[in-house]
Amino acid sequence: MLKSVWLYACTVAHIKNPGDYFVFELADNSIIIVRGRDNEVRAFWNSCRHRGAKICLEQRGRAPRLMCPYHQWTYGLDGQLLAARSMAEDFDKADHGLSPVALENVGGLIFICLNDNPPPIDRVKADIVDQIAMYDLEKLKVVVQDNYVEDANWKLVMENNRECYHCDVGHPELISVLGTTGFGKDAPADDYLEGKRAEWQSLGIDRDLIEFPDGWWHRVARLALANGAVTQSIDGKLACQKLIGPFTQPETSSLSVWTQPNSWHHFCCDHVVTFSLTPIGPDKTMLRTSWLVHEDAVEGVDYDPDNLAALWRKTNQQDGHFSAINHRGIANDGYVQGPYALEEKLVDDFKAFYVSRAKAALAQVQS
Amino acid sequence: MLKSVWLYACTVAHIKNPGDYFVFELADNSIIIVRGRDNEVRAFWNSCRHRGAKICLEQRGRAPRLMCPYHQWTYGLDGQLLAARSMAEDFDKADHGLSPVALENVGGLIFICLNDNPPPIDRVKADIVDQIAMYDLEKLKVVVQDNYVEDANWKLVMENNRECYHCDVGHPELISVLGTTGFGKDAPADDYLEGKRAEWQSLGIDRDLIEFPDGWWHRVARLALANGAVTQSIDGKLACQKLIGPFTQPETSSLSVWTQPNSWHHFCCDHVVTFSLTPIGPDKTMLRTSWLVHEDAVEGVDYDPDNLAALWRKTNQQDGHFSAINHRGIANDGYVQGPYALEEKLVDDFKAFYVSRAKAALAQVQS
Amino acid sequence: MLKSVWLYACTVAHIKNPGDYFVFELADNSIIIVRGRDNEVRAFWNSCRHRGAKICLEQRGRAPRLMCPYHQWTYGLDGQLLAARSMAEDFDKADHGLSPVALENVGGLIFICLNDNPPPIDRVKADIVDQIAMYDLEKLKVVVQDNYVEDANWKLVMENNRECYHCDVGHPELISVLGTTGFGKDAPADDYLEGKRAEWQSLGIDRDLIEFPDGWWHRVARLALANGAVTQSIDGKLACQKLIGPFTQPETSSLSVWTQPNSWHHFCCDHVVTFSLTPIGPDKTMLRTSWLVHEDAVEGVDYDPDNLAALWRKTNQQDGHFSAINHRGIANDGYVQGPYALEEKLVDDFKAFYVSRAKAALAQVQS
Repeated sequence: MLKSVWLYACTVAHIKNPGDYFVFELADNSIIIVRGRDNEVRAFWNSCRHRGAKICLEQRGRAPRLMCPYHQWTYGLDGQLLAARSMAEDFDKADHGLSPVALENVGGLIFICLNDNPPPIDRVKADIVDQIAMYDLEKLKVVVQDNYVEDANWKLVMENNRECYHCDVGHPELISVLGTTGFGKDAPADDYLEGKRAEWQSLGIDRDLIEFPDGWWHRVARLALANGAVTQSIDGKLACQKLIGPFTQPETSSLSVWTQPNSWHHFCCDHVVTFSLTPIGPDKTMLRTSWLVHEDAVEGVDYDPDNLAALWRKTNQQDGHFSAINHRGIANDGYVQGPYALEEKLVDDFKAFYVSRAKAALAQVQS
Repeated sequence: MLKSVWLYACTVAHIKNPGDYFVFELADNSIIIVRGRDNEVRAFWNSCRHRGAKICLEQRGRAPRLMCPYHQWTYGLDGQLLAARSMAEDFDKADHGLSPVALENVGGLIFICLNDNPPPIDRVKADIVDQIAMYDLEKLKVVVQDNYVEDANWKLVMENNRECYHCDVGHPELISVLGTTGFGKDAPADDYLEGKRAEWQSLGIDRDLIEFPDGWWHRVARLALANGAVTQSIDGKLACQKLIGPFTQPETSSLSVWTQPNSWHHFCCDHVVTFSLTPIGPDKTMLRTSWLVHEDAVEGVDYDPDNLAALWRKTNQQDGHFSAINHRGIANDGYVQGPYALEEKLVDDFKAFYVSRAKAALAQVQS
Repeated sequence: MLKSVWLYACTVAHIKNPGDYFVFELADNSIIIVRGRDNEVRAFWNSCRHRGAKICLEQRGRAPRLMCPYHQWTYGLDGQLLAARSMAEDFDKADHGLSPVALENVGGLIFICLNDNPPPIDRVKADIVDQIAMYDLEKLKVVVQDNYVEDANWKLVMENNRECYHCDVGHPELISVLGTTGFGKDAPADDYLEGKRAEWQSLGIDRDLIEFPDGWWHRVARLALANGAVTQSIDGKLACQKLIGPFTQPETSSLSVWTQPNSWHHFCCDHVVTFSLTPIGPDKTMLRTSWLVHEDAVEGVDYDPDNLAALWRKTNQQDGHFSAINHRGIANDGYVQGPYALEEKLVDDFKAFYVSRAKAALAQVQS
């Protein structure tokens, strides 16, 4: 299923300069996402066209060219084969460039698809770009990246992400900043929200809620933060003094983007945090979380990395525990599927997406 | 096969008070065995009826109610659902209690069966209760529990338990206490046993040997200990000064119970030791050994835990080694099944039980 | 496939004296190779004929008899069952000797075959004996043995061994001693080689190159060493002062033997190094490297073990890295098989051997 849908991989800020690469891994698959000398971002299979060796061994790096460490076949940043020693006379380098992988740049969020016939992405792209363009991801930099392996099946970690029924008890730190706004319960009073929307209009950041349009796979919502918080930090205070996007003053809201089946993102006035989720195996899942700040922000002056990451790092660990006990519980022969709570509607949406795409992928295989 | 037979799980002493629970695990399955406020012992699947999360995370514990740590669905000790937030109006708590698992209390030994139609247990129960009731397990407490993972398939560990052909060389410590009585070789002289039986009659502890009655799965035998030993301890001396059951004086015999396919137990005049064996995977097996003494015995005064456990801890390690080399040896393509020695009759009995139940389970699946 | 071909296991020097045994392991299979009191070398399945336990638990050892540690069934070094306690009256020891495995001694290199109908080996034997007999392996001793687990499929490690296209960059230490002689590139000048061959003739060590004769699976070549090296050591200098075989003076060449599908060997004037490669699992491979010197050589006087092993130990580690990245790269769904370089002809030969034997093994299974 995961090989026939668009998957979020990283942001343009992860590969800020020509030659910067980011390796995205999905179970045994490894894909190089690299920025070319022409500033274009491209994706290639991380496998040499000679004997298939892995080319980029680090998860992130920078290189003037992509050289296979086994026999030194050397490729340009655009995937063209530049050099290969001792080949037969009829060998044509033009036939042996790196194999490309479909890639879309969605307002700075990089999505890839491992299938040669990727499904449509146009409406997702239009809707998300409209909402996040103002944050200008090209002007940000990645200052913290956590790679956290969860002891649970990827699907369960996704389901955990799609509901906040567990938040009140499970995420006290997060709830003190987020409230439960947007999750259908204890919503802020209407008049407060009216005031906020007026403020958002004056700032030019007011947009309609987008909630998994029929047949599509994205949700975008501006959330009013709680308890006076101006960002998603452990104390609700600015985590970076240098503001981003259109903001010149701290702003008590954040914009969130969720995509099926593997990502979510929060855009605050001082930083952006993005999450990608990929299976390592049936009972191991990689959650990669990246924190981005303004490219001119200075560590130790404008931001402290540990403080910046503290809220979601804590939340990730709590979710890792929940997903792990969920995984172990449903492994029982005696497990019976139960009913969702009112606050778990988005879990059902995720499940519907998963089932429909899995059926489609299966039909494609069988035909 | 293991899911359609009765399996020994623990004793009533493992869950001595209301709210005490014991988690029995069989490969991916996890079952909560819990004592209710009404003192009844019940078994439930360790999986919340909401999203299936594991409820009891510790192997043993005590709780006033069983609360799922994920979304706080809360169950009584009798499995009834007491609380669940934010459910739809038509949600009925009465339909969502914990799923029960069949359980039988056999004179204080708790057996469970994962199948909804458990096989008969009545004769096993009658026979075992008749012999062990005098030890009154409700009056004992568990003071040592070892969880030992063996690098061997569960079936091989069972076969190892069913013969003492390996004991003379393999278990010098055990043999010095047990002799080889009851294993068909070097049995004590008849007149010595006659004298012992007269003594047992006067104590009211004499019973007939029960040896896997046709179609059943239990064996019970009183063993005359060797070399003057009064209990199964490393030096043959009392391991707990407070005697149990009907005993007011040290007694040079012990009562042993074996059940197919996963347990054995030894009842001495000063303590009881029980063993349960469950597969973790095809090449990993959990041997759980528990040592029980009188509930009024005082650690450091009446008994020393390490001394109490020393004999069988040593024996378990030796058996773990034997099972592991057996496992590795039969993995060879060149392995050929060989003949049993005269002293290995009970291995054959175990194999016959296993094959008949496996065939029955297979037939049930196929019908 | 590997169970129907001849596999290199060890040398006669690994089991120098009667009672010496060497345990060869292939995935779950374990074979005892043992020298008898009659000096014959035999192979047996490492599984007791009683309950199948593993008999020899150490990888190498010496024993007057082979006794199963489980129930002490005892076998002679020729595999005959000598003792078994408590068996039924009709038990015949003659029927329960250790199960033999096919074995051939090829000039001191021991090959075994796990199939009861091994393929022909006569030409391989004649050709290799003709070339290596002069090194008289019975007069050598094993002084270093490395067991190195590679994170790669066995087939990839073999392919890596069959080409030196990766050597120039990947093995600087090896190349400084070997040059690239024999690998088709930068070969020594013809007149130099002419001079060498004249010298080899005078020493009686000149033989024709044997290069995987049609339908066979061996290659033998004398290589002129480079840069004045007289052996395959890290500095090209003698690694053992006591010369072997016909040599009375250091000699700037070495003889190499490669066999499909699991070995290679280098015979120098002062030592021999042999390699066997066996799968542990689909992504783990055991490379066993042994270094042999004259039986009269004295450690610390004639040779230093670490210096003796340094060159190939370093080379093995480099190859382990290459094989691991090759393994990970071809695991990609996007992996495409590429063309071989001119210097990779022997990889193709290996692949052809593998495919033909795999097809034959499959046909045998299906018939």
